[in-house]
Amino acid sequence: MAVDVGSVKGSLVQEMEGLMPEGVSFVACHPIAGSERSGIDTASADLFDGKLCIITRTERTDGGALDKVSKLWEALGSKVELMDPEVHDMIFGLVSHLPHLAAYALVNAVADVDAGSMKYAGNGFKDSTRIAASPPAIWRDICAFNTDNLLRFLDIFKANIEGLSLYIREGDFQGLEDALRRASKLRKSIED
Amino acid sequence: MAVDVGSVKGSLVQEMEGLMPEGVSFVACHPIAGSERSGIDTASADLFDGKLCIITRTERTDGGALDKVSKLWEALGSKVELMDPEVHDMIFGLVSHLPHLAAYALVNAVADVDAGSMKYAGNGFKDSTRIAASPPAIWRDICAFNTDNLLRFLDIFKANIEGLSLYIREGDFQGLEDALRRASKLRKSIED
Repeated sequence: MAVDVGSVKGSLVQEMEGLMPEGVSFVACHPIAGSERSGIDTASADLFDGKLCIITRTERTDGGALDKVSKLWEALGSKVELMDPEVHDMIFGLVSHLPHLAAYALVNAVADVDAGSMKYAGNGFKDSTRIAASPPAIWRDICAFNTDNLLRFLDIFKANIEGLSLYIREGDFQGLEDALRRASKLRKSIED
Repeated sequence: MAVDVGSVKGSLVQEMEGLMPEGVSFVACHPIAGSERSGIDTASADLFDGKLCIITRTERTDGGALDKVSKLWEALGSKVELMDPEVHDMIFGLVSHLPHLAAYALVNAVADVDAGSMKYAGNGFKDSTRIAASPPAIWRDICAFNTDNLLRFLDIFKANIEGLSLYIREGDFQGLEDALRRASKLRKSIED
């Protein structure tokens, strides 16, 4: 049996399944845990405790292997959820890959204007750009395997930036407040 | 003496100084502390401890009043730094107002695609959008008082988003990695 724990699934799962030798099953997992840090020094015994672990299932996934892998994650404290690889990449493109790109772009934008200003950053900036400290090579690869979703989501994100910009440019502060309120309500609705 | 603790200074300080009655000094302060939460339930005795407090000084600022207000903030544990109001609005437009707008836009972009995906959000999304839960009316007003800076910074942010998008569209993953690495290095260089 072969297992992976990467952040992208779609085409990768398809390719891996094709590469498995006779009698070897492939089960793709994505534990939703961790941080921008990497390496053995950041190890944590309760890293997966209470956290979600997505396992992607395709028509080629072996039931017995899936069951074994699920039990392994559950033994580590994870809550397992099964998902189609394509759906996985849409969802995590949206709530993980896009936010990473947004954070990288935000730090670069600040540096384009005045990198020295960053020493005045408060918790807001630090929280919102923490994931921009993530390893560039890993995130390059994630982007390379989820291009179609990311190009679409980046366009939609850009349109939202343009929308806020337009409200400000036109002095439509009621429109601006409505847009901020929509986001504020949604953000408050998810558990922190 | 009159004091304010708002997030924008430039035109507001100028206007307030003009409104002060004879013998009343205006001192504008901006403590870099707090969170997206508001209200008495979120009060904290050590909120300002070790945190920066910007006091803006203009040619009309009274030296004695400035001294008294500085001592007040220092007594609360703050480190006081004096700054020109226009410089203040540039710096905090960049490291506070822009990141707030980015976070609001990111949540709205996710909702435009599939709001239901947010239940799968991990710490990355939660950190990077935490400030999108901030009070919309306050942030509408902050934007209204810092329009020129924000319009410029939003354009630069948008250009960075477009840049990442272009690397992905053209399959230039070395270019993408370089851009991500630039941000990653910068973000790691600031104290968390």
